[in-house]
Amino acid sequence: MTRDGFPKDEPLFRRLAVIGVGNLGSSVARAVRKAGNGVTHVAAYDRDPAVRARLQELGIVDSVHETAGDAVEGADIAVFCSPVGTYRAIMDEVAPHLQPGAVLTDVGSVKMAVVRDVSPLVPAGVHFVPGHPVAGSEKSGPDAGFADVFRGRYWLLTPEEGTDAGAVARVEALWSRVGAIVEVMDAAYHDKVLALTSHLPHLIAYTIVGTAFDVEEQERQDVIRFSAGGFRDFTRIAGSDPTMWRDIFLNNKDAVLEMLQRFTEDLTALQRQIRWGEGDKLHEFFTRTREVRRGVVEAHQEGTSPWAPGANGGKPGSEGGNTK
Amino acid sequence: MTRDGFPKDEPLFRRLAVIGVGNLGSSVARAVRKAGNGVTHVAAYDRDPAVRARLQELGIVDSVHETAGDAVEGADIAVFCSPVGTYRAIMDEVAPHLQPGAVLTDVGSVKMAVVRDVSPLVPAGVHFVPGHPVAGSEKSGPDAGFADVFRGRYWLLTPEEGTDAGAVARVEALWSRVGAIVEVMDAAYHDKVLALTSHLPHLIAYTIVGTAFDVEEQERQDVIRFSAGGFRDFTRIAGSDPTMWRDIFLNNKDAVLEMLQRFTEDLTALQRQIRWGEGDKLHEFFTRTREVRRGVVEAHQEGTSPWAPGANGGKPGSEGGNTK
Repeated sequence: MTRDGFPKDEPLFRRLAVIGVGNLGSSVARAVRKAGNGVTHVAAYDRDPAVRARLQELGIVDSVHETAGDAVEGADIAVFCSPVGTYRAIMDEVAPHLQPGAVLTDVGSVKMAVVRDVSPLVPAGVHFVPGHPVAGSEKSGPDAGFADVFRGRYWLLTPEEGTDAGAVARVEALWSRVGAIVEVMDAAYHDKVLALTSHLPHLIAYTIVGTAFDVEEQERQDVIRFSAGGFRDFTRIAGSDPTMWRDIFLNNKDAVLEMLQRFTEDLTALQRQIRWGEGDKLHEFFTRTREVRRGVVEAHQEGTSPWAPGANGGKPGSEGGNTK
Repeated sequence: MTRDGFPKDEPLFRRLAVIGVGNLGSSVARAVRKAGNGVTHVAAYDRDPAVRARLQELGIVDSVHETAGDAVEGADIAVFCSPVGTYRAIMDEVAPHLQPGAVLTDVGSVKMAVVRDVSPLVPAGVHFVPGHPVAGSEKSGPDAGFADVFRGRYWLLTPEEGTDAGAVARVEALWSRVGAIVEVMDAAYHDKVLALTSHLPHLIAYTIVGTAFDVEEQERQDVIRFSAGGFRDFTRIAGSDPTMWRDIFLNNKDAVLEMLQRFTEDLTALQRQIRWGEGDKLHEFFTRTREVRRGVVEAHQEGTSPWAPGANGGKPGSEGGNTK
């Protein structure tokens, strides 16, 4: 028996299908293969022929299929890794091909909308366990993924009440074996917390990069040249896939708008303090936010790189942040 | 002759004084010593006795002084590395101790206010060359600095018209020899561009971290635990020194408020697009911001760590950004 309660010599899943093979899809394929946890076949589908061709070259999956239906045929588990706005159409297509007992999961950043779109279409006997790895990078495409991206990162599962406990446990075990810290939580709570930790930061980053872009040419070039002063951290986030992020914002609208409202209020308060030269209040506020940073560092979620959290062992300046 | 036009065997400066020895001050001391560019003595002053004691232990400077006046005594160049709000008081103290022909410079993130505060107090025969290295990390204190932090980074100089050209050239050469790309520019332009690339990003980061802090305890812990989704990049920036940043905002008020106004308008537009489900507009905007990211990467200002820009040679995901 392994720590997750499943016998080591008994595979959790034998055939896994990845639907949508960008950065995350290819990371899932690579991670599952590297873990060698009983999966003997990784089938893949991507709607982009160029990606399918590239997958053949990369050799990170065992078979590449022309349709999502073909890819899930005979699979014990299917993992949706395309933008969340595509799930409903994909479900329509794959539903007749999913075998009884199969598990369906995903890696989407929003969960309420996914449950809303997918659950009604899940065939009887198929177990739907929505999921979200809080990991990845801003780069796109199958070349951008890597096997260790989930190591030390949280992988959140949001199954509805009444979901087959065995299916949930097997999904938990699968992602634990690729190095993730798996937690089960409520979908609404997930969406609220992620609106704050991920969706709002991305929206802000996109905005500030856009603001910086709307200046005259000379200034724009200097904004890029002097980006090490803080701006470049925002450009990294704002370099993420446009389709994926459009779908996230449209599908977690309420939580994002609520957090945005709070943010705007807080920003307005700071703006006023700057305008009126209230240095003490600014100082007090900046001191408080510093505590949050300490919390992040202590939670070991500060790593320089997604595949090696905390690998720098406290080397000075190892987090790469330029703050001037 | 070296590339900067100064004879290699003739030192640019012999005795250098660092006033304020936190992260940047200690980096200046370390960098100058490592470069071995003729400086034979680094004198240091910090108003904090604990920092002075630590400097004795670290051995990164040649002498530690109880007053700023003592530290600049006999110095060919003095470098102000304390928060910009302290400059005026320090100038009052050091002015009588600066020898004719000495050069005065600084590393502050705002330049108009520095010129306003310092220039009137500069004694005749002393050359004031305001400066700003676009480098550093969010960590504070003399242990946080390192010699190579300026390598490949911009170091901007904003001397007033009529400043002794020889003095400017020697400061340029000094920082070039620690690896920086030195550029001379107008102080007002500097403050405007840096408001966009550094001050506004910091303000936004402080705000969002504050917003995330004002939730109930359980949620706050989860915000920290799931911070790899984008939030942690903001916490890093928001972990910067509160005094330094208070002084920056108060001393670049006009440019910061103007950029903040533009940002708020842009954010409001995005907010409206999300509320009304205008996916096409969102997608178009996110595609445009991605181009800016490409520009930053192409300008080689994207490095994972301040002392090794571009050292990752394009390893997948090497920029450490988690975007989900």
